Amino acid sequence: MGFVLAVEGYGSLGGVEAFFKAGSVAIIGASSTPGKIGYEVVRSLVEGGYKGFIYPINPRAEEVLGLKCYRSILEVPGSVDLAVFTLPPSLIPRVMDECGLKKVKGVIIISGGFKELGPEGERLEGEVVEKARRYGMRVIGPNCIGVFDGRTRLQTFFQSHDRMLRPPAGDIAFLTQSGTFGTVILEWAAEDGLGVSKFVSYGNRCDVDEAELIKYFEADPETKVIAIYMEGLGDGRRFLQASKEVCRKKPIIVLKAGRTEEGSQASKSHTGWMAGNKQVYEAAFKQGGVIAASNLEELFDMAKALTLQPAPKGDRVAMVSNGAGPMVMAVDSLKEKGLKLAELSGEVKEEMRKLFPPFYNVNNPIDLTGSASSKDYDIALRNLVKDLGVDIIIPFFVFQDTPLDEGIIEVMFKASQEGRKLSKPILCCAAGGPYTRRMSRRLEEMKIPVYPTPERVVAAAYALKKHASNLKQA
Amino acid sequence: MGFVLAVEGYGSLGGVEAFFKAGSVAIIGASSTPGKIGYEVVRSLVEGGYKGFIYPINPRAEEVLGLKCYRSILEVPGSVDLAVFTLPPSLIPRVMDECGLKKVKGVIIISGGFKELGPEGERLEGEVVEKARRYGMRVIGPNCIGVFDGRTRLQTFFQSHDRMLRPPAGDIAFLTQSGTFGTVILEWAAEDGLGVSKFVSYGNRCDVDEAELIKYFEADPETKVIAIYMEGLGDGRRFLQASKEVCRKKPIIVLKAGRTEEGSQASKSHTGWMAGNKQVYEAAFKQGGVIAASNLEELFDMAKALTLQPAPKGDRVAMVSNGAGPMVMAVDSLKEKGLKLAELSGEVKEEMRKLFPPFYNVNNPIDLTGSASSKDYDIALRNLVKDLGVDIIIPFFVFQDTPLDEGIIEVMFKASQEGRKLSKPILCCAAGGPYTRRMSRRLEEMKIPVYPTPERVVAAAYALKKHASNLKQA
Repeated sequence: MGFVLAVEGYGSLGGVEAFFKAGSVAIIGASSTPGKIGYEVVRSLVEGGYKGFIYPINPRAEEVLGLKCYRSILEVPGSVDLAVFTLPPSLIPRVMDECGLKKVKGVIIISGGFKELGPEGERLEGEVVEKARRYGMRVIGPNCIGVFDGRTRLQTFFQSHDRMLRPPAGDIAFLTQSGTFGTVILEWAAEDGLGVSKFVSYGNRCDVDEAELIKYFEADPETKVIAIYMEGLGDGRRFLQASKEVCRKKPIIVLKAGRTEEGSQASKSHTGWMAGNKQVYEAAFKQGGVIAASNLEELFDMAKALTLQPAPKGDRVAMVSNGAGPMVMAVDSLKEKGLKLAELSGEVKEEMRKLFPPFYNVNNPIDLTGSASSKDYDIALRNLVKDLGVDIIIPFFVFQDTPLDEGIIEVMFKASQEGRKLSKPILCCAAGGPYTRRMSRRLEEMKIPVYPTPERVVAAAYALKKHASNLKQA
Repeated sequence: MGFVLAVEGYGSLGGVEAFFKAGSVAIIGASSTPGKIGYEVVRSLVEGGYKGFIYPINPRAEEVLGLKCYRSILEVPGSVDLAVFTLPPSLIPRVMDECGLKKVKGVIIISGGFKELGPEGERLEGEVVEKARRYGMRVIGPNCIGVFDGRTRLQTFFQSHDRMLRPPAGDIAFLTQSGTFGTVILEWAAEDGLGVSKFVSYGNRCDVDEAELIKYFEADPETKVIAIYMEGLGDGRRFLQASKEVCRKKPIIVLKAGRTEEGSQASKSHTGWMAGNKQVYEAAFKQGGVIAASNLEELFDMAKALTLQPAPKGDRVAMVSNGAGPMVMAVDSLKEKGLKLAELSGEVKEEMRKLFPPFYNVNNPIDLTGSASSKDYDIALRNLVKDLGVDIIIPFFVFQDTPLDEGIIEVMFKASQEGRKLSKPILCCAAGGPYTRRMSRRLEEMKIPVYPTPERVVAAAYALKKHASNLKQA
């Protein structure tokens, strides 16, 4: 029975699959005290909609959240696919032995107190790895928040549902060395209605690493886009080899911390890994075809574009707005990201010139001024969609401007349908308060992403273009 | 009567004061059709709480929003301090004559169709300026969204209240060449409860310019911080001279668009001004003491820090978090912005070592791990406040982590009170969904700013430090 979830289309739970599709989970170090990490992890599973077996383990508790509590994993009646540790580090080697005897497939160590603390912790971490190898178990962590699966809702978070939103099921896989960045990305995704296939916070990365995970996601039919926050790589060569292969099929976006000597040092006391030299990584990434993000917002923004919009045929960008200021800054960013400002065809400009008032600017970037209605956007967008010299379209909106009527939603729907047929992605830019957020949300429900600043929409466009070139090299 | 507002503490309405403190406003080109710019501007004034006289002017309307409409400004019975034009450009020179005869003090031209369209528009704009000089009137615009005063609530927006929030009265003055960026900044301020003293969108800038406005704000008791978005400067030397004087007293933050050749070209068709060479501006800004922002978020973030927190005594930053990932990226940013990671005193580290579990890291950046409670933050913050080697404190929060109890609000209140006494600013970093936003909002109500990413909080810290050095040179 514990295997029911696992076998649905997955079979053997080999490799890292048990971390996402386990049919049974034991929480070793479960607690009956709300607010304790060992309580909150059980609560996440229960309240999160996970349908497999949940076994709290603690020799000093009768039950946790109404679930029978076992004194040891060896006392659990059925099989256990996955064990989650919320225990003091010193107890962990002994518990690894018990998990080995129980034939557990995967272990997630939430607890910190290992390599990030220095030589003594490093020795302890080595012992954990040695035991995992002996029993043929795989390990995620230590010093992490573990995993989340969008479909099985398996999750090992100590962040309660009232404090942290969970995203729906979808096709973005997130890997993060920092649990904190993980919580942020998951909530941003949830708020924008973006779906996640799998999420892994891997902390000190003592066993399962990025290379193995991206190879797994390459074959995973649930995953379309891979986004990673990393500090230091363990085996850089292994990651580069894997990313080189995978990114010809699925985009890999990487945010790399520790660009400076000081940052690298800080990373060492965070997850026990030096972050290494920026130049080396940049060169290696370039060669490996990964898409580099420069901050967490960009990582998220790029993933959003890649999951919602098609890869473009080229790098020529056209922009249109009812307020030109942000387009001026966008032109700067395009240039800095190596994208081109499209030269519109004479025919297209002629048609706009005929239909628009004389004070609209019909050159790219097209300025419809604050007087623009949705009809004006319709004219501009129809022309940009048909212009063969345009590969990517970025409409900017000042939704605050009262002349812009809500017919714009319908106009955008049509434009985006046409754009998809022609592999011409459409990314929007709009910022402001509640009304702008409502309008943006309506666009995003139609799978048209909206970004708050020119730099961010251009970074998203860059990711699409970079992915398109990777595909061409496949 | 029309003068009542004006004289309250201001007197003569000389120079640019009429734009903010006018006791009477005429909207020339007022319309009775909702959605038209000439209607929405009247509506903004009426619904925005402006207490002065409002005179809609249109030869073909009887009334607008229940206000009597006049055929010409010359028919208005009382005096008129300020005239707002929402008219086709070709009609404007004649109307300037009427305003001159009526002894209007200031004119705001919302309409576009001038210098940004090329030689013909430039000629028309020249004519407007010539008439303004002849009659001794001052002009803001053309091609802008005009002004907003936080106290008189005078505002000339065609953005309705249901689409655009207005901020409360406060001490930040915003100047922007782009109306669009203006709408965004105003809503961001409103949502964060940040107050604005004066707002000016100046578009093509045919008369009143940044130099004059910052000199006015220097003397303005309502203004403490000046934030500017600009594309091209008219008289660069004049601005640099003015900013050099003003920034020794009040901080001036500048976001400059048109960093690239292409961006500069785009700026020309936006507001008629070439943006000019990036290097020249950067050198000049450095010399002038302005604080450079690299995007709109940074402009806003810096203004927020400068209005809410004191200037620090130095550049040594200490950080503390219950999730270390963002601190790793912050260390990178500190380094890149020329700030220092503080070296904590032995005594302070000793005290924390004594009180904390062994797996907390008591070196800067201090990692309290996901187990941290508000008591742990209290210990860390008390020590950072008293450590003489620390000038700026940045607490990071993973509010999603359930062990972190809401006692943190009280802890932060105490820390920030102590920090203010010692001129030791406190800036926070936290990101996520609804719960995190609620907690952040509670901190900001206590005038402790919260930023969503490490880069953004560090940019804000940089602004405080840069302002502190400017003050020292005063």
